[in-house]
Amino acid sequence: MHQLKKFLEYKAYQMRVSSLLMTTAAGSGHPTSALSAADIMSALFFYTMQYDPKNPDNPNNDRFILSKGHASPVFYAAWKEVGILTEKDLLTYRTFNSVLEGHPTLRFICTEAATGSLGTGLSIGAGMGLSAKMDHRDFKTYVLLGDSEVAEGSIWEAAEISAYYKLNNVIAILDNNRLGQSTEVMHDHHPQRYAAKFEAFGWKTIIIDGHDMQEIMGALDKAKEVQDQPVIIIAKTFKGYGVDSAQDKEGFHGKAFSKDELPGILEHMKRRFSEAAYFDATSFTWTPQLPQEPKKAKTIECNEIILKTPSYKLGDKLIATRKAYGQAITAAGVACENVMSLDAEVKNSTYAEIFEAKFPERFIQCFIAEQNMVSMGVGLERRGKIPFISTFACFFTRAHDQIRMAAIGTSKLRLCGSHAGVSIGEDGPSQMALEDIALMSALPNSIVLYPSDAVSTYKLVQEMANYEQGISYLRTTRMNTPVIYEATEDFPIGGCKIVRQSNQDQALIIGAGITLHEALKAYDVLLLQGMYVAVIDLYSIKPLDAQTIIKVAQSAGKKIITVEDHYIQGGLGEAVAYAVRNTGITIECLAVTQLPRSGKPEELLQWAGIDAQAIVDKVKRFYP
Amino acid sequence: MHQLKKFLEYKAYQMRVSSLLMTTAAGSGHPTSALSAADIMSALFFYTMQYDPKNPDNPNNDRFILSKGHASPVFYAAWKEVGILTEKDLLTYRTFNSVLEGHPTLRFICTEAATGSLGTGLSIGAGMGLSAKMDHRDFKTYVLLGDSEVAEGSIWEAAEISAYYKLNNVIAILDNNRLGQSTEVMHDHHPQRYAAKFEAFGWKTIIIDGHDMQEIMGALDKAKEVQDQPVIIIAKTFKGYGVDSAQDKEGFHGKAFSKDELPGILEHMKRRFSEAAYFDATSFTWTPQLPQEPKKAKTIECNEIILKTPSYKLGDKLIATRKAYGQAITAAGVACENVMSLDAEVKNSTYAEIFEAKFPERFIQCFIAEQNMVSMGVGLERRGKIPFISTFACFFTRAHDQIRMAAIGTSKLRLCGSHAGVSIGEDGPSQMALEDIALMSALPNSIVLYPSDAVSTYKLVQEMANYEQGISYLRTTRMNTPVIYEATEDFPIGGCKIVRQSNQDQALIIGAGITLHEALKAYDVLLLQGMYVAVIDLYSIKPLDAQTIIKVAQSAGKKIITVEDHYIQGGLGEAVAYAVRNTGITIECLAVTQLPRSGKPEELLQWAGIDAQAIVDKVKRFYP
Repeated sequence: MHQLKKFLEYKAYQMRVSSLLMTTAAGSGHPTSALSAADIMSALFFYTMQYDPKNPDNPNNDRFILSKGHASPVFYAAWKEVGILTEKDLLTYRTFNSVLEGHPTLRFICTEAATGSLGTGLSIGAGMGLSAKMDHRDFKTYVLLGDSEVAEGSIWEAAEISAYYKLNNVIAILDNNRLGQSTEVMHDHHPQRYAAKFEAFGWKTIIIDGHDMQEIMGALDKAKEVQDQPVIIIAKTFKGYGVDSAQDKEGFHGKAFSKDELPGILEHMKRRFSEAAYFDATSFTWTPQLPQEPKKAKTIECNEIILKTPSYKLGDKLIATRKAYGQAITAAGVACENVMSLDAEVKNSTYAEIFEAKFPERFIQCFIAEQNMVSMGVGLERRGKIPFISTFACFFTRAHDQIRMAAIGTSKLRLCGSHAGVSIGEDGPSQMALEDIALMSALPNSIVLYPSDAVSTYKLVQEMANYEQGISYLRTTRMNTPVIYEATEDFPIGGCKIVRQSNQDQALIIGAGITLHEALKAYDVLLLQGMYVAVIDLYSIKPLDAQTIIKVAQSAGKKIITVEDHYIQGGLGEAVAYAVRNTGITIECLAVTQLPRSGKPEELLQWAGIDAQAIVDKVKRFYP
Repeated sequence: MHQLKKFLEYKAYQMRVSSLLMTTAAGSGHPTSALSAADIMSALFFYTMQYDPKNPDNPNNDRFILSKGHASPVFYAAWKEVGILTEKDLLTYRTFNSVLEGHPTLRFICTEAATGSLGTGLSIGAGMGLSAKMDHRDFKTYVLLGDSEVAEGSIWEAAEISAYYKLNNVIAILDNNRLGQSTEVMHDHHPQRYAAKFEAFGWKTIIIDGHDMQEIMGALDKAKEVQDQPVIIIAKTFKGYGVDSAQDKEGFHGKAFSKDELPGILEHMKRRFSEAAYFDATSFTWTPQLPQEPKKAKTIECNEIILKTPSYKLGDKLIATRKAYGQAITAAGVACENVMSLDAEVKNSTYAEIFEAKFPERFIQCFIAEQNMVSMGVGLERRGKIPFISTFACFFTRAHDQIRMAAIGTSKLRLCGSHAGVSIGEDGPSQMALEDIALMSALPNSIVLYPSDAVSTYKLVQEMANYEQGISYLRTTRMNTPVIYEATEDFPIGGCKIVRQSNQDQALIIGAGITLHEALKAYDVLLLQGMYVAVIDLYSIKPLDAQTIIKVAQSAGKKIITVEDHYIQGGLGEAVAYAVRNTGITIECLAVTQLPRSGKPEELLQWAGIDAQAIVDKVKRFYP
């Protein structure tokens, strides 16, 4: 035991040295934030965690999430000590061709989740902990938190959900090093104040000296024994621990030491930690504690997810797309046992309640805490689950940083936002999503889908279930709409549907969701007046079928009118305008351009100039 | 006293009746969420609060924020009881021409802040409380919270900041009615669990029966006496209190009672609350407690804010626009004492620290809690302050719902996001804003500004200080850039600068921020090769100077190349493409199209295809 402790101190020392070497080589980075956590990291990686270093995909590995992502040097240094990285690798830190990025990303194979925007790690950990409970696996998820980031509300959302679901397999370690980027943290060096908060939120708390290896080991042992509660170890540490000139001092955040300073610092560190520095590494053999597959462990593998053909019929009575979403994810749940539903306490509005009724054990109530819901989805998805995450579309704005980080982490999140646009009516602007297409489009590898009837909703949910390149977003409508497609119709990502076309068309109207129905009404009115227009259902806004749009427009007077229940900025119209640039096609875009208000859906569609009459008027101005 | 209590019960009863009448008339709304809060509202409006009902702008009025915005019926009902609204007004609830929207907006003159997205009210209240402290005013800010919304992390950000700044003038009341929209709240009917959390966050807590008028009055009295701490009264209530068929039952959230049911419900209520129902209103004379102007109260009025001419000189040594921002807000602080700076613990990156050094008392450290920072800004702004709110541009995504709600509330927020784009370099994608133009553009009445040098930054800050129509957003760059304008140059909102032009131009290059400098380098390269292009600095992306762009492009080969350090979706390129649609101008857009990574700024600009060389290549393909 004594030798083990010395070995862990030696590993911590090595991580300190590596952290300094790599940041100085890079000329940037956060060495002092790494130094405060080195002892904790050593105990985690070489004492507590059970994992197979050679197989990061082993489903029984304990998981580690570096929520304080800027401390990446100590994270990479730990993997070097484990033998996965070399010193040469470390010296590529932050360079263009290296996978060792400034903040961890999935490009490095041992990263569990991209971090760097603070306050997301605990939610991701909660998702992983939840997946372990669902699959009867014994692995623990360790989350290293910074003390600055505990000011983020998302931490408290994660704290309350983890306690609510009694996730005793989630063990957080708070690196209370006292100093933020530019000033002292709110609670300075008072670990008991953090403890009081976490206790009030239902956590078991343990306060330790984060530089005393014996205390760290003891706390980690204790943490594993806790039942029915998540655990947080609050470690009092010093920022820059080991470098006297910087330790516990302001002004050293995010600053690499210069190549000139480094030799002196290392020399000093060798003297200060002489026992660790001169530890005989051959005197102790570390072997990883490989995890066991529990007898009850569940492994579910789904290949392509094929939904049973829906029972909707062309001309059927009205069905809201949000309701079809609930039915479709339930069908997806039948097709694959990994499919889950996450709700932010609006299940009776989004119709996630249909899924809950059928699969209560795969339905997670996240309460009104959208940030945690999204990042918890990242954690679940990383552990093989297929969560469909739904709330009012406008409330995804609450979690946009988490969605952005999920995209950076190449998460395959499936998001559904209901109650899009002014057509929700009386509830007023706070409940209307009018920017969601813009937000969800401006994410790398995302797709943005917007169905107009039950069939297309259902089929697009199937597409989402099988979309593996990034985030997929589905926009649904509050109002009931008629079924306009045969149940056998397919809706591939990146496609569109030509729903009206003749050889006399003088314009092409492009709508999606609720405005497609306005376009169809306009079509009927115009036809009675002898005016012919083509109509396209642009159910896939990103990617967008430019080829079909251009082709149809070219045989429709080279004129396009787009119409959408969304602000003009970043919406469907701008996307189409961009797609048809340089083609000589004329385009006019009908969209919401002012702050809306309460009113009847029809009044608001009219007020915004996106109803059938507005389309008719626009076509008439266009018509030769 | 006894008669007063009866009067308050009578007023609560009237508010219940009104809440039912107006929601039934509207055919929608949240009567049960209103009913649980009626007793609290009565005590607030007729017992505790000091305000001049006839002058909502009186700077000494106590303030009331309905954080649980869906309970709007009881809010409007209270103002009817005060005499500001009539029953006829109430019956217009949720109709198109009414100012009584589904969730409160600023269209109703007595609304302090738009709510309806949950979890923002406490932050807004903290901003108001802070303004009172700064201006030596005695008013209190009362915030009515729902129990569902306390799951939102933003609540805990507000809780910690309010305690940190010892805002004993912020008094929250938690309506613990046990039921959310679709299920029980996490802590059910356990007020002590909420109390434990708030206590751990540094609040004084008081638990009461929220339907016992005497207890409510007592708690509100006590709350006023607390020193050095914010106070929360946790009121155990019943959702739907008064309507036996719905009281404390699931399935009644957001449902108006039918016109058929209503008479029976009202009849029953009259029997149940017979004393209140038959109270002789003439027996008690209520007069508002008008607030007093404290002797020390500070009133600051600024008209147009004019900044001292900056000392930057054309050709000056390199200055990052983020640094010029810090200098400019400091100059604005000199010009007007209402100007403030709010920081999310990155002041040494955004250069808000320059302001702090000069005006420590007007600098508010918000720590890493962007959601609270933005909504606190709304509260400060509503009370006459001019806060400039800054953090890394990518971290404003954390607060996008708060920004969206600020726009709905017509707040004049001034936001500055630093570290835009891949050009930040080594820190990697989590720190790069590549979607902020899209997000900030898709807000009603917002403006989006993106300066390329110190002079334009400085002048645009002046424009922001005077912009009163909505949210203004400034995007700054991490890297140093040369000064390219004379200090006397003006930069009006909605303008652009033609920085290079000749009568032989074959294309127009449009850049902004860092890419303008790449465009200027490309210009030099092309010129040496005998190729002429015009260059525009599009410092105002929204609104956008379509006229000048089209005019310049038309005399530059009718060809435009845009180049931006932002994703293509919702960025500068799409905005220009939309603006020049239907003109016959050809446009190509250079922008970031993939998930970036760590690397040197120059490497990343090259990798993204947005550096000088990429522009040169594109022009050459264009050149005749």
